[in-house]
Amino acid sequence: MTLTMADYAISTVETIIAPVRGFTVAGVPAGIRKSGRRDMALIASAVPCAAAGVFTTNQVKAAPVLLDQTHLAANPAGMRAIVVNSGVANACTGAQGLADAAASAALVAAALGCRAEDVFVLSTGVIGVPLPMERIAAGISALAGNLAPDGWAAAADAILTTDTVPKTASVRVQTPDGDYTIAAIAKGAGMIAPNMATMLAVIATDAALSPAALQAALSAASRLSFNRIVVDGDMSTNDTVLALANGASGVTVTDGDGLAAFQAALTAVCTELAKDIVMDGEGATRFITLHVSGAPDEEAARQVAMAIATSPLVKTAFYGGDANWGRILAAAGRAGVLLDAGRLALWIAPGESDCADGLQLVADGSPTAYSEDAAAAIMAAPEVSARLDLGLGAASCTVWTCDLSHDYVSINGHYRT
Amino acid sequence: MTLTMADYAISTVETIIAPVRGFTVAGVPAGIRKSGRRDMALIASAVPCAAAGVFTTNQVKAAPVLLDQTHLAANPAGMRAIVVNSGVANACTGAQGLADAAASAALVAAALGCRAEDVFVLSTGVIGVPLPMERIAAGISALAGNLAPDGWAAAADAILTTDTVPKTASVRVQTPDGDYTIAAIAKGAGMIAPNMATMLAVIATDAALSPAALQAALSAASRLSFNRIVVDGDMSTNDTVLALANGASGVTVTDGDGLAAFQAALTAVCTELAKDIVMDGEGATRFITLHVSGAPDEEAARQVAMAIATSPLVKTAFYGGDANWGRILAAAGRAGVLLDAGRLALWIAPGESDCADGLQLVADGSPTAYSEDAAAAIMAAPEVSARLDLGLGAASCTVWTCDLSHDYVSINGHYRT
Repeated sequence: MTLTMADYAISTVETIIAPVRGFTVAGVPAGIRKSGRRDMALIASAVPCAAAGVFTTNQVKAAPVLLDQTHLAANPAGMRAIVVNSGVANACTGAQGLADAAASAALVAAALGCRAEDVFVLSTGVIGVPLPMERIAAGISALAGNLAPDGWAAAADAILTTDTVPKTASVRVQTPDGDYTIAAIAKGAGMIAPNMATMLAVIATDAALSPAALQAALSAASRLSFNRIVVDGDMSTNDTVLALANGASGVTVTDGDGLAAFQAALTAVCTELAKDIVMDGEGATRFITLHVSGAPDEEAARQVAMAIATSPLVKTAFYGGDANWGRILAAAGRAGVLLDAGRLALWIAPGESDCADGLQLVADGSPTAYSEDAAAAIMAAPEVSARLDLGLGAASCTVWTCDLSHDYVSINGHYRT
Repeated sequence: MTLTMADYAISTVETIIAPVRGFTVAGVPAGIRKSGRRDMALIASAVPCAAAGVFTTNQVKAAPVLLDQTHLAANPAGMRAIVVNSGVANACTGAQGLADAAASAALVAAALGCRAEDVFVLSTGVIGVPLPMERIAAGISALAGNLAPDGWAAAADAILTTDTVPKTASVRVQTPDGDYTIAAIAKGAGMIAPNMATMLAVIATDAALSPAALQAALSAASRLSFNRIVVDGDMSTNDTVLALANGASGVTVTDGDGLAAFQAALTAVCTELAKDIVMDGEGATRFITLHVSGAPDEEAARQVAMAIATSPLVKTAFYGGDANWGRILAAAGRAGVLLDAGRLALWIAPGESDCADGLQLVADGSPTAYSEDAAAAIMAAPEVSARLDLGLGAASCTVWTCDLSHDYVSINGHYRT
């Protein structure tokens, strides 16, 4: 995607992350995961950053989520670093968990020469197990000694759990005042992975923004990306998206086209990572784009789309390559949105498509005389799109999901055993 | 279960249905399902009945649901019969579907000598296919010729789709004025079965009640039974529970202990059928009873229990026999109920149990020092119970569910192909 608006140009989203000015990054093995693979990451800025965060709304919040919310509220313009560990989620760990998260931040602060409240802590992994603080401490020492501008790939690798591939994205934005980069890494193999507390993303930019502008941009981008994906409908105790803006590019983003360009670039990066998470969803064999159009408002469209995307019957039909439109209509009907069944229309198309040239399966709530062979051919594609029009208004919403396969059951039925 | 209240005695719930005075019943093969098995049923009363119904809240309602709602509203004290077909759901069939449902009622009315608006119509099966009216007409003729007091087993068989066993239940209530029976048949192998529009139940009693009293009792019983089960969280376009009371026993139920006994007996019958549906859930290998206690109110308890019962991660963990309490807490946390994570407590026990003697896995939101071997032994049972206490109040709720297995994915991934 290349967006051009007057004096601004946004590059296509790259999966390789070039250095982001003012940031150094590391990923190391710290012995938290048994496999000996990388399991800790550190993202540090040479100067204080504006910060923003989006946190799980789960009522059972992990200790690092509670700590980060406190740090962000107290210090939104002075954050310096984000430390991440995989293997242990530090969720359901009580007072000890809070103390351990705070101690992790203090250890990073000591190594970097900043205050503990300048440090975010992220954890992902098994619930109910305390952080192994000796290994965490040694890991933080190793991370501090390995910080480098090109450490992004190692960091992206270190934060994975059941993911099968690292998830990275970056864009460069050219402005009249110079250029800046937005880079991000994420992990997550489900909205929640097996016994795991899962979706994390870290975003770094060398643009300068106020904390309020960064938060607004991050919230808007998350709403259109991370909050529009479904693997299994579960929500983790640790889900967190953090953004740091250190201004090292010399470009200041305030309002107008400059802010619009930043918002578009940030949304592009987040959308890329969100889709990567779905494509790497546990057991996923098929990537599905769901459009709901003709809705009275966007929230109604989103509710219908999410009901379809979380339906086990819809997801197993996509797994089987079955154009089972009845399940899509039935899921839409229980979304809690007032519908007129006689106005529903449904199209499918191969690939990631708006379905404008798609095969129409349903018109006025009843099946068309479509060819089952044509439908089966579309459903056999590795990526399939569907559009359900409610016939009620002009609002729409797009969500991304994956199918529900035998492997999902295998992965989650036997994870701890 | 035998409840005794003063002058009333309720028998244990039996799965064999003895004749219910004033009702004749039939089940026949009508060629709607390809297999040649029974696929139409008729339940008829010699005299007009008080009637009550509970219908799907899905916004996409099948034609028979719309017809039955009209008949019930117009004629709550004069219903005479319920005709059921399996194989075709008559959902998403537009104006033709409504005409076909009305024609089915008219055909039954002609055969029985009553009015079309005295007849309920139920359909279950594939969505989007019109009723084969020639076969329906011939089936109704055959049904009318086969009506008999002992036709319940044939009728229970005729309404099944992906179910593997028929579901029948009856109780007898002794009162100072004589005795009466409540008999019921149901079908459903999921809250929604593959491409199917699914859960149906028909209840007949020879007690006399006003339509309002019968509706209140049916709504209360459904709330505690059919609305407390989950197979996959999907909801069908056809779900319907109908009750007919013809008064042929000479016992009139009005209020006080008499009404309490009727309510208890009806709830017992509905609960038995609801559990039967879960036990016969698609691919189910394990029956799970979930109690949520310590809730601020019953609705909060129900929301938390349903979030746990619908979680794919919880259901796959039960399939794997994994005491994965972190998934239960994480599902509870996203139920939309305000929780205090530090007050959560969790127990598990084998069988259908209140967990009073269960193994405590979580106290104050953190794991106890429980034995993994002891937990694994409990989870290996074919029936497992869990109790989550929220530590917030005195309200509670119990729901029943099953696990999510490889067979569920097989059944639903390849149903139409």
